[in-house]
Amino acid sequence: MEPSDAVHPGPGRAVWALSPRLLLLPLLPVLLGRGLRAGAAASSSGAAAEDSSAMEELATEKEAEESHRQDSVSLLTFILLLTLTILTIWLFKHRRVRFLHETGLAMIYGLIVGVILRYGTPATSGHDKSLSCTQEDRAFSTLLVNVSGKFFEYTLKGEISPGKINSVEQNDMLRKVTFDPEVFFNILLPPIIFHAGYSLKKRHFFRNLGSILAYAFLGTAVSCFIIGNLMYGVVKLMKIVGQLSDKFYYTDCLFFGAIISATDPVTVLAIFNELHADVDLYALLFGESVLNDAVAIVLSSSIVAYQPAGLNTHAFDAAAFFKSVGIFLGIFSGSFTMGAVTGVVTALVTKFTKLHCFPLLETALFFLMSWSTFLLAEACGFTGVVAVLFCGITQAHYTYNNLSVESRSRSKQLFEVLHFLAENFIFSYMGLALFTFQKHVFSPIFIIGAFVAIFLGRAAHIYPLSFFLNLGRRHKIGWNFQHMMMFSGLRGAMAFALAIRDTASYARQMMFTTTLLIVFFTVWVIGGGTTPMLSWLNIRVGVEELSEEDQNEHRWQYFRVGVDPDQDPPPNNDSFQVLQGDGLDSVGGSRTKQESAWIFRLWYSFDHNYLKPILTHSGPPLTTTLPAWCGLLARCLTSPQVYDNQEPLREDDSDFILTEGDLTLTYGDSTVTANGSSSSYTASTSLEGGRRVKTSSEEVLERDLGVSDQKVSSRGTPLVFPLQENA
Amino acid sequence: MEPSDAVHPGPGRAVWALSPRLLLLPLLPVLLGRGLRAGAAASSSGAAAEDSSAMEELATEKEAEESHRQDSVSLLTFILLLTLTILTIWLFKHRRVRFLHETGLAMIYGLIVGVILRYGTPATSGHDKSLSCTQEDRAFSTLLVNVSGKFFEYTLKGEISPGKINSVEQNDMLRKVTFDPEVFFNILLPPIIFHAGYSLKKRHFFRNLGSILAYAFLGTAVSCFIIGNLMYGVVKLMKIVGQLSDKFYYTDCLFFGAIISATDPVTVLAIFNELHADVDLYALLFGESVLNDAVAIVLSSSIVAYQPAGLNTHAFDAAAFFKSVGIFLGIFSGSFTMGAVTGVVTALVTKFTKLHCFPLLETALFFLMSWSTFLLAEACGFTGVVAVLFCGITQAHYTYNNLSVESRSRSKQLFEVLHFLAENFIFSYMGLALFTFQKHVFSPIFIIGAFVAIFLGRAAHIYPLSFFLNLGRRHKIGWNFQHMMMFSGLRGAMAFALAIRDTASYARQMMFTTTLLIVFFTVWVIGGGTTPMLSWLNIRVGVEELSEEDQNEHRWQYFRVGVDPDQDPPPNNDSFQVLQGDGLDSVGGSRTKQESAWIFRLWYSFDHNYLKPILTHSGPPLTTTLPAWCGLLARCLTSPQVYDNQEPLREDDSDFILTEGDLTLTYGDSTVTANGSSSSYTASTSLEGGRRVKTSSEEVLERDLGVSDQKVSSRGTPLVFPLQENA
Repeated sequence: MEPSDAVHPGPGRAVWALSPRLLLLPLLPVLLGRGLRAGAAASSSGAAAEDSSAMEELATEKEAEESHRQDSVSLLTFILLLTLTILTIWLFKHRRVRFLHETGLAMIYGLIVGVILRYGTPATSGHDKSLSCTQEDRAFSTLLVNVSGKFFEYTLKGEISPGKINSVEQNDMLRKVTFDPEVFFNILLPPIIFHAGYSLKKRHFFRNLGSILAYAFLGTAVSCFIIGNLMYGVVKLMKIVGQLSDKFYYTDCLFFGAIISATDPVTVLAIFNELHADVDLYALLFGESVLNDAVAIVLSSSIVAYQPAGLNTHAFDAAAFFKSVGIFLGIFSGSFTMGAVTGVVTALVTKFTKLHCFPLLETALFFLMSWSTFLLAEACGFTGVVAVLFCGITQAHYTYNNLSVESRSRSKQLFEVLHFLAENFIFSYMGLALFTFQKHVFSPIFIIGAFVAIFLGRAAHIYPLSFFLNLGRRHKIGWNFQHMMMFSGLRGAMAFALAIRDTASYARQMMFTTTLLIVFFTVWVIGGGTTPMLSWLNIRVGVEELSEEDQNEHRWQYFRVGVDPDQDPPPNNDSFQVLQGDGLDSVGGSRTKQESAWIFRLWYSFDHNYLKPILTHSGPPLTTTLPAWCGLLARCLTSPQVYDNQEPLREDDSDFILTEGDLTLTYGDSTVTANGSSSSYTASTSLEGGRRVKTSSEEVLERDLGVSDQKVSSRGTPLVFPLQENA
Repeated sequence: MEPSDAVHPGPGRAVWALSPRLLLLPLLPVLLGRGLRAGAAASSSGAAAEDSSAMEELATEKEAEESHRQDSVSLLTFILLLTLTILTIWLFKHRRVRFLHETGLAMIYGLIVGVILRYGTPATSGHDKSLSCTQEDRAFSTLLVNVSGKFFEYTLKGEISPGKINSVEQNDMLRKVTFDPEVFFNILLPPIIFHAGYSLKKRHFFRNLGSILAYAFLGTAVSCFIIGNLMYGVVKLMKIVGQLSDKFYYTDCLFFGAIISATDPVTVLAIFNELHADVDLYALLFGESVLNDAVAIVLSSSIVAYQPAGLNTHAFDAAAFFKSVGIFLGIFSGSFTMGAVTGVVTALVTKFTKLHCFPLLETALFFLMSWSTFLLAEACGFTGVVAVLFCGITQAHYTYNNLSVESRSRSKQLFEVLHFLAENFIFSYMGLALFTFQKHVFSPIFIIGAFVAIFLGRAAHIYPLSFFLNLGRRHKIGWNFQHMMMFSGLRGAMAFALAIRDTASYARQMMFTTTLLIVFFTVWVIGGGTTPMLSWLNIRVGVEELSEEDQNEHRWQYFRVGVDPDQDPPPNNDSFQVLQGDGLDSVGGSRTKQESAWIFRLWYSFDHNYLKPILTHSGPPLTTTLPAWCGLLARCLTSPQVYDNQEPLREDDSDFILTEGDLTLTYGDSTVTANGSSSSYTASTSLEGGRRVKTSSEEVLERDLGVSDQKVSSRGTPLVFPLQENA
């Protein structure tokens, strides 16, 4: 019952200081909520307890209002930043400036605003209250404080190191623009990662699956280990030189290795896309970086979980090590399963309901299911972000085929917008954080060491792995590709999010600062150097890779070939291009077989014959692929559409079930083609006229039949399967 | 330095109890963030302070993890609910069941889950800590608590009434599913309201502008006042009967009148849409309910601001009353201005940049600007939700015309999905809240009184107002329309959000419970009764109102008439329908003039001649509408596209600048038509083929010219302006 005895009017410990932590940019202003709620509560509590002095209430209300306004202003700052970035990007794209990517730009703008905020705004002083009471030895999450008869509820925000309490020179505005790090991890990353999975170009991804997996898993582990060890050396050196003022353990170094191993060649890939650079290199880089992120997240949490038996021995402990490996495998496979299962469930729901007549419902369901993956994984103790990645891949591979055309574009566009906003927000925030973040620890030795370490780590992972992979690959990864991969080791959003997640200790603060600088450097230098590097390394640009939408347009042409031009349908395009004789991809035809990793071929056949027919409306009817004793099951699971599509071809079906190499392709597939393209035709009409209801499934079917007939007549043209060519 | 003396191990005052308050459904799980961050902080603070016992840390970490999982589970509950709702809606739509709207369904599912949570889960006990210390007479926002040497930071969550501290029998799960009310106001309502503004059918809205404004402003005020007074009578009665256990002032009654006056005929309008009921009635109902919401928000905050001079005199105070009226006008006009200004700025930016070549950038900008309205208004002390409404209307009226076709559909679909999710979430939450909300005050007399009061309030507003409006309107609002409007007085999301915003006092809790019941009753009973009511009242259904998308399809046909079939272009369609002779709208042609309120005609001419040319690519060139001395300005502001469109017609231009009644329509307008339709053609091709780049402005222009030529040849057909008919 004693009055508090230690009042620290620490400058700028803001009123409602929690708000900025909740600040969710791509969402809507919770923080405003805070402010408003506070205001409302203040006014209402005023009504309830009239005996309290009106003056006091007014003061509280005013303070809350003031804080609320500041919150709005700080969010507005970010919106202004993003708006500026968008306008400048447009200008750059308009003038075909390529030396600076939008993310780099967002960082620069963030940096400028950060400098202004840091040096331009006066340090204001807030009110706060220190209440020192020796309680039991743990802090409770909720405190009830009796202030002269009125009870106030307080919630634990976190621990602060005792040294900081008085010394931190804080500024309201700076505090406001500093978000809760978990916002990055739980709100900004999921859309980015989901989009990556959802927009994965599966054809080239699966073609290079083996190499991608090797780079992502082995490569990241090697890189993490090498960087960790090098940094441990650097830390030892710093200790000798006397530059290290606090503890820095071996596990910390490994943790740094893990977070900095997450590459994010967003700039490079954007330029690749624009210049139409080699698609296989694109697939390798993109695939690696996507899986890479997942590996880095799980790896870093495994390292955190690595706790040797004695608390103070930060030496190697075999048991703890294997426990960490177990945790890694557990979390990874668990998250993978979670993501895949949600994807499969969504596919089944969209397949067996006629939800596609109501695109809005379909999109909403799709969104909710994808989001629930994140929650489900988190609820089960796995990593939501990783689960979301695999969910994205599964959704794109199966569910996408069941969606109505409108939902396809809707879902793509929805996630594209979310991804764009989230990504640019993270990069502007990075720029801002360099000046507004309060706990930077700049250590030149560590930073230089880190740059060297990531260079060596990347080299030690790309070149040896490529060497070993080339032993198995028939289509070798050339030196120029290897150099390009080496060069493209940018660090981006994921490294930043992992680094900012925990900046409590000295070691972590130093890591955060270093990560930030590495991100800055790589985004600007490598982003700017991509185009010269491409020409210097003689990497083909201007490859007329058919983008997904282009494929839509060209689908009618594919009919001639009679193969599946569906989303994933891998090697057909090459043969198509060969037929077209555009010369650009003339190597393509001959290398297709070699590139199909055996694991891919096995998977493809299983996927094509069983999974796709079960989960989507496409593929051969299960009745033809499953053994006879599963007849009933097969009939239940096969969608009637497949039969309908099959009808006009039925008598010839058996002739066309070809077995080429490891791949079983049935001619029935081509009907899917017809379906796909006719519904894309539906799309155009429906968007023209909005008369979706009329172009319902019956019409689609009618057209399908028509198209199928049309194809039947052209069936005389040889079925050019790429694998056949080499047979 | 005294140890806390009053520990209340209140059951279920959960660890990290803040989390559920931040829970933002349509967004991403902040609360997961909380949980995770907590875990991370726990683990890191562990690393930093090794001297603390490992056991304690583990306990905290485990608790945080547990809480984190519960958060995920509670969010998953909502996702499950929404998913179930979506699937059932599909089933209903599929089978054409109309007696229950999706919102009603969401409420039922919410109710069921609420019952399960309430009675199915055991009450768990959490940990918390009461720390009673007599401080100075105000609570500080941040507390620093020294727990045996470690400093913890606590933030003020709010006041709790002393009686509640021990008595509340709380349950972790129930707490988890109870959100911070401001989430509704700041996150769920803005997309709903923006969508309402953005999808407003401007043609009919503006045609009935006068009546809509009368219903929305006068009607809501009348309704609020009548309900408030009736409820004050009820409260007096309750006091006499002895049913009232706490204070209930006159201002509280007025506040109740304000929140319950916000109608939300979402169910009725959905059914209207489906049955193609009379469009004017639709416009009246929709327009009223949209503006209604804005009026109710501002009205309720004005009433809260009404504070008579003496704190204890809750009697009438003229000064305070006029202050409240001033606040009402200030907030309303401020929010309106804010929304309109942001809309205009967006229109100008999209007009004068060629952002439309990059739809993703454009959509992102559009989204950010619309969102910034909310923040800007909140930062300036206005109401964000109201600002967002007018921003939506402005964006639809001007910016929409500048967007690329892809952005148009993107932005529409984006907001449609957000709206759908937010709305259904609110309704499921309402169902849930009936059982899980902890502070219900059921008072039968108050509830019955409220039902009678809202009935009388609605009657006293619809019938007299309609009578007076009919004096001025040439096309009278018939009795059947009046009855239907009377019947459609549903209460929905807005009333709920306003009621839940503040449930601190006894009076507010009673209001909340009553509002919830009113929403339930009206949504179910009126939602189910709409179809029978429509046929009973002989209201035309099956009116082939051309929806916006249909208009796109029909644009080619409009050319014949040579009038602007642009987004807003109000009365032309009727004349078109008359030409088509479809008979359904045969009254249409003759009533067009009478219905155009003078305010509308004035506005339309100003808008058409000045605002649209300045803000969009459409309309007549400013050089023709502005006086000669503004020549330079006019040339700067007019977009080159307008001139280009104008070119082939230039020599005849002057002939066709007709001045009919109050309306100045220039023939130049028809070129816009050509532009509009040719770009909608672009849309179809671009969505077919994804080759957006190729169908760039040059091609559009080429087509425009072609189209214009085509039209020039058909210029012989009479220009059927609806106003001309009656002249």
